[in-house]
Amino acid sequence: MIPWKALSGLLLLVGSLQQQTWAKESKGHVSVVIVGATGDLARKYLWQGFFQLYGEQVSSRHSFSFYGAALSEPEKGNPAMSEILKGLACPADVAPERCALLKDQFLKLSQYRQLQTAEHYAALSAEIREQLKQEGLVEAGRLFYLSVPPFSYADIAEKINSSCRPDPGVWLRVVLEKPFGHDYESALQLSKDLKKFLKEEEMYRIDHYLGKQAVTQILPFRHENRKFLDPIWNKHHIERVEIVMKETVDAKGRTHFYNQYGVIRDVIQNHLTEILTHVAMEIPVNRSSSEEILKSKLKLFGSLQRLAKGSAVIGQYQAYNSEVTVELNKTADYISITPTFAGVAVYIENSQWDGIPFILTSGKALDERVSYARVLFRNQVFCTQNIVSVHCKPKQIIFHIGQGNLKYPAFLVSKNLFKPQLPLSGWKEVTEYTNVSLFGQPLSEYYVYTPVAQMDPYAVLISHIFQAKRDSFVSAENLLASWNFWTPLLDGISHEYPRAYPGGADNANLLDFELQGNEVSFVHEAVVLLSPVRGGASSESFQITQGKYRTNEMVTAWAEELVSRLASDLHMAAEEAMKRSGQFHLALSGGSSPIALFQRLVLHHYTFPWKETHLWMVDERCVSLTERGSNFRNLHDNLLQHIKVPYFNIHPMPVLVNQRLCVEEDGGAESYEKEMSRLINGTSFDWVLLGVGDDGHTASLFRGCKLDVLENKLVALTESPFKPHQRMSLTFSAINKAKNIRVLVLGKGKHEMITQLSRVKDDPKKWPITGVKPSNGKLVWYIDYEALLG
Amino acid sequence: MIPWKALSGLLLLVGSLQQQTWAKESKGHVSVVIVGATGDLARKYLWQGFFQLYGEQVSSRHSFSFYGAALSEPEKGNPAMSEILKGLACPADVAPERCALLKDQFLKLSQYRQLQTAEHYAALSAEIREQLKQEGLVEAGRLFYLSVPPFSYADIAEKINSSCRPDPGVWLRVVLEKPFGHDYESALQLSKDLKKFLKEEEMYRIDHYLGKQAVTQILPFRHENRKFLDPIWNKHHIERVEIVMKETVDAKGRTHFYNQYGVIRDVIQNHLTEILTHVAMEIPVNRSSSEEILKSKLKLFGSLQRLAKGSAVIGQYQAYNSEVTVELNKTADYISITPTFAGVAVYIENSQWDGIPFILTSGKALDERVSYARVLFRNQVFCTQNIVSVHCKPKQIIFHIGQGNLKYPAFLVSKNLFKPQLPLSGWKEVTEYTNVSLFGQPLSEYYVYTPVAQMDPYAVLISHIFQAKRDSFVSAENLLASWNFWTPLLDGISHEYPRAYPGGADNANLLDFELQGNEVSFVHEAVVLLSPVRGGASSESFQITQGKYRTNEMVTAWAEELVSRLASDLHMAAEEAMKRSGQFHLALSGGSSPIALFQRLVLHHYTFPWKETHLWMVDERCVSLTERGSNFRNLHDNLLQHIKVPYFNIHPMPVLVNQRLCVEEDGGAESYEKEMSRLINGTSFDWVLLGVGDDGHTASLFRGCKLDVLENKLVALTESPFKPHQRMSLTFSAINKAKNIRVLVLGKGKHEMITQLSRVKDDPKKWPITGVKPSNGKLVWYIDYEALLG
Repeated sequence: MIPWKALSGLLLLVGSLQQQTWAKESKGHVSVVIVGATGDLARKYLWQGFFQLYGEQVSSRHSFSFYGAALSEPEKGNPAMSEILKGLACPADVAPERCALLKDQFLKLSQYRQLQTAEHYAALSAEIREQLKQEGLVEAGRLFYLSVPPFSYADIAEKINSSCRPDPGVWLRVVLEKPFGHDYESALQLSKDLKKFLKEEEMYRIDHYLGKQAVTQILPFRHENRKFLDPIWNKHHIERVEIVMKETVDAKGRTHFYNQYGVIRDVIQNHLTEILTHVAMEIPVNRSSSEEILKSKLKLFGSLQRLAKGSAVIGQYQAYNSEVTVELNKTADYISITPTFAGVAVYIENSQWDGIPFILTSGKALDERVSYARVLFRNQVFCTQNIVSVHCKPKQIIFHIGQGNLKYPAFLVSKNLFKPQLPLSGWKEVTEYTNVSLFGQPLSEYYVYTPVAQMDPYAVLISHIFQAKRDSFVSAENLLASWNFWTPLLDGISHEYPRAYPGGADNANLLDFELQGNEVSFVHEAVVLLSPVRGGASSESFQITQGKYRTNEMVTAWAEELVSRLASDLHMAAEEAMKRSGQFHLALSGGSSPIALFQRLVLHHYTFPWKETHLWMVDERCVSLTERGSNFRNLHDNLLQHIKVPYFNIHPMPVLVNQRLCVEEDGGAESYEKEMSRLINGTSFDWVLLGVGDDGHTASLFRGCKLDVLENKLVALTESPFKPHQRMSLTFSAINKAKNIRVLVLGKGKHEMITQLSRVKDDPKKWPITGVKPSNGKLVWYIDYEALLG
Repeated sequence: MIPWKALSGLLLLVGSLQQQTWAKESKGHVSVVIVGATGDLARKYLWQGFFQLYGEQVSSRHSFSFYGAALSEPEKGNPAMSEILKGLACPADVAPERCALLKDQFLKLSQYRQLQTAEHYAALSAEIREQLKQEGLVEAGRLFYLSVPPFSYADIAEKINSSCRPDPGVWLRVVLEKPFGHDYESALQLSKDLKKFLKEEEMYRIDHYLGKQAVTQILPFRHENRKFLDPIWNKHHIERVEIVMKETVDAKGRTHFYNQYGVIRDVIQNHLTEILTHVAMEIPVNRSSSEEILKSKLKLFGSLQRLAKGSAVIGQYQAYNSEVTVELNKTADYISITPTFAGVAVYIENSQWDGIPFILTSGKALDERVSYARVLFRNQVFCTQNIVSVHCKPKQIIFHIGQGNLKYPAFLVSKNLFKPQLPLSGWKEVTEYTNVSLFGQPLSEYYVYTPVAQMDPYAVLISHIFQAKRDSFVSAENLLASWNFWTPLLDGISHEYPRAYPGGADNANLLDFELQGNEVSFVHEAVVLLSPVRGGASSESFQITQGKYRTNEMVTAWAEELVSRLASDLHMAAEEAMKRSGQFHLALSGGSSPIALFQRLVLHHYTFPWKETHLWMVDERCVSLTERGSNFRNLHDNLLQHIKVPYFNIHPMPVLVNQRLCVEEDGGAESYEKEMSRLINGTSFDWVLLGVGDDGHTASLFRGCKLDVLENKLVALTESPFKPHQRMSLTFSAINKAKNIRVLVLGKGKHEMITQLSRVKDDPKKWPITGVKPSNGKLVWYIDYEALLG
């Protein structure tokens, strides 16, 4: 990008030339169409951005037309647009007379169009062709900037495609503004809708944070300083990364939009997540390839640890609810639980970042306006003397995006880290330190760099659209990956009451939050929660109840609490078995219910005696262990890869013997039986976890299996009515010998079966689960409220 | 222990009683023998400690005799001892007249004995018996405190055993002072020597740090505050632990001892390591059981990560060498490399402490005298407001052992952590804060507790000997475990030149050191090392040389550098294979040489693409995989358990099929061959690591194996001349297809064979290693200097 300063010289040379005189050497004509040209965004940023683009490109042998478009008729649209164009400002470093000349040209090239019907689009297309013809110009491309609500995207895209698409070989770029959906499903739908009319490479999804100067320079900074950063840009040296966007404003006047979205969808899923990717992604070898950068981002999304309810704390400023009530015409008893503040702990599961918290936080009505990404390094030095040595001062790198005490965008690197290389033109070192402290260090303890000229992010991005620098925009794949990451959290907190906060400095430390394991919680305990007047999950409903089910003990609670209780009980049983015998033999089922248990164990039970635990399978599908359908693969991905179990303690069922699956003669079942006998000393499992199918099956013991034939076996090949039909399973003989059997049942889908089972007598042939009757051990049912109560 | 204050009342009651009058109710008579009674330690601490013990026990119905013993004849010893006894001091809180009475009694009960020959010991024993008889007393026990150099321990122990052992049923306690050896071997020898004469439970090995008040209270503090500590006393909440003993004094006048020992043997192996165990060990359920506490310590020793050369930085104050030269009568060119400063990073490999550095550091001629253990918690809170919230201040717990700015022993707990419970009598809360800052926080930000009365550690320990509180002493098992831990480091640095430091405040930040991975290094680079005038490993000798061996490339260096080079080369090969095919197939040999490689990979190559690496075995012994002799077990313990490889990528050789080992008909070799073909896509390993035996064998391909018969196989059962004879091995066909073959040869023991091999022609029947001839790949030899040059 050529800065305006450099440009002003050129303007002298070309300023008086008419477009026509150099048309023959032209790189082609570009038509820019701003749809929603008289709206807020267009008025504030877009026209100004395109004016700046024009200024940059005036000497590039491209020619331009600018169309401001809207639904209104020209009589209304024209004056509104003229009003905006008159207000276009020149950068401070361009001489007024040169700027006036340029602005005059820009105004001549700009006109208003009504764009509503397909005919309007067709007419615009015809006019473009006519102009090209008349002026003897070749067409380079058409750029549509849709500054309109997303619900109209598909409609406009259809009309562009049907009636205003340029000829093949001429580029088409359609720029879209967020929101791009409000969760994974809606984003997928929007993406599908648009795909009917536009190719992915024709769409430019804007996240204006990608145009913020400090953000655009994160990757170049990391690349230029890789000599220093390569050894330290990892979990061994970094303590945590904070990605923060604090606002002092509230949502007043915007609640119509805001109340549906909330802070996570509004700024965290997009702006802060983009920054996270820039900080954490691998820098591709070819940094100039947008494709490689986007691919590297996608890879990072694939490494993000799944979020759960506990991954975030949420808050809502106290005045919000009355604002919503007024603006949305709600009744007085209306309670909005839309969060206006959130703090989220994000973890990346790769060898570079494993275990390092990325704290993403944003909120309205806070004490200051500031946004930044802060990389805090670990304290790795031991200072031998009693005086405070420079080595023991904090080490941090800050990408200061804007505002705050510093006011300007900047990079800051603690002087005890390294002196960064910043060969990029457009940035300068700050050497006059104001009396400002940032993150516990006076400014003088940092190397500070700031842009020579501050640029509006829209101007930056409009220039990048023109350059087709696609990595400054959100690809469909990355958008969906981001929603895929955020949606489970949004679902998880959709019924949660945010903590109320007064706003501004009064918040004091009410919103401070703490990492605990992979979860976060507010530090300050005594608080007023938004009172749960209606609906939702009140604190009372989280209690755990004990009772009886089918003559056995039963524990019931909401799914999350139930699973956490089961995990604690399992942990305790393991400790007891350890004390008794030095070993713990645990047999686990397949299916989806245990996954929640595995995750709980991984995140909360790091003292679990895995080293002494033997893991056995209750049943297995006859597929290769590495296939996604394999129960063992499920166990591996959700549990084994996160913990340290000795290899010898892991006992997958040998479904593949002699390179074939579950053939009776290969003796897989017998071999598993022998392994059990050898290691469990002829006795029995300490703990068996079972599930129940909708049809009452358990393990892989199905209705109609010849269960009586299996009585003298511990492991057997069985048949399932579902695919894959072939299974290997523990038999009732093996299961019923166990010291402890737990049956975990989760979800509404199991309600009917649980109701039915509560009434039937033991009849293993019809209801295989009723064949589970421990001979000496204990059977406990863990049934969640949804399965129990529907 | 009854404090003197309480005692002073009792003294009024019993003070005038004669021992004889309550002899019948007596708990028995105790004879205390201080051997070395007129030495330095005895004069400063021991007599005072026993006087205090007497004061505590005077009302306990025990009666006492105190014998001061030494080699001198009574004419010399008597007056020397009297001089010492006259100087005995009373605690400040005991009234002078009461103390005088007590001291008078103590002097009457104390006498000097010459103890040199067995006859002397026999005479003492006879006298004790005679006294008991005369006074009608029952004997409770005999306590020998050996305040003499360790070389005389065995001799004295023999005499006690042969000539002064009490009757069965009467206890014997022999107290020993460090040093207990200077490495594992010497400690083991000393332990064996003493065992001939004394039972383990009769020996009390003193580490006077175990009598420091702040140290004795670490376990009780942890126990009493477990409600707060249980959730946070682990790797998830603690950033690091610093265990520090800084001295301002130098070694002048003590170099005769010091020069043989150095700072690690002098204070780190014992004092600081004891503190480490108290901070990190599991608190046993029965805290009053010395046995359980010692067992728990032993368990901790078992979890310590092996130290290597890089685990420590060492220094020596500049004046030291001339002090040594003078005191030890060395010639002017003498250079001592005994460290007077060391900083060591210790890691504990269990789920509680994994990855958390315990920094142990001590030195002479530093800027201040202080000792403490500091537990620094991670910064886990995100403070949402710009003001510094209490939540974001440092969180730490300090066991302040003594001196420093604080001057007194204390516990300090940051107020933003929790208010500790300290129900222990003898400790009080400090509420008047002096203007002192500790570790970046003013005293007022801590809860501070200090003993009501300061006690000398010897007085504490003498009381514990009397109470047989064995966990206040060093057990033989724990002593050996500690030496077992420290010896590899001591060996590793035995030729290293310490960094020179000026001493005192002038050290500035010259001794600041930094953690990097699991290693430490000085932060400050520009320094004068002690000049390597003679001997030792100069920097030059660490270079890596490349050459040819048996027509192939060869890399040679000292073992450590060679292995680190091999690890880097392997890592690079893995990255390249990854880029090429997304996978890396690595086949590894058994034996001891690869262990160094595995350790290097674990500690230094955390970005190794393990997730995409398949691990294969070059050969295997026909034993169960869990047996210690198994190559796979070796791989598991040294590599697999420290890294994250998907289960599916691990390929042990199937030596156990159908519950039997290596039976041809069970088809184990064929099944491995099939697995290889299935996963490696019919091509070949990316990298094969081989070793060579003394007899020229490689893999499990031995002289006399029918190697030609194996040509059409990839995997085969073979015979070894060594036990276990049965093996499974890759064949030359499989090995020679590999893209890269590396042969690693380490150690003097291989020199003869390497010399011989360099002369012979290819003859795989006689020299199996010569059969390794990659068909398309590359073979490189990695031979260390010892193997190459002898």
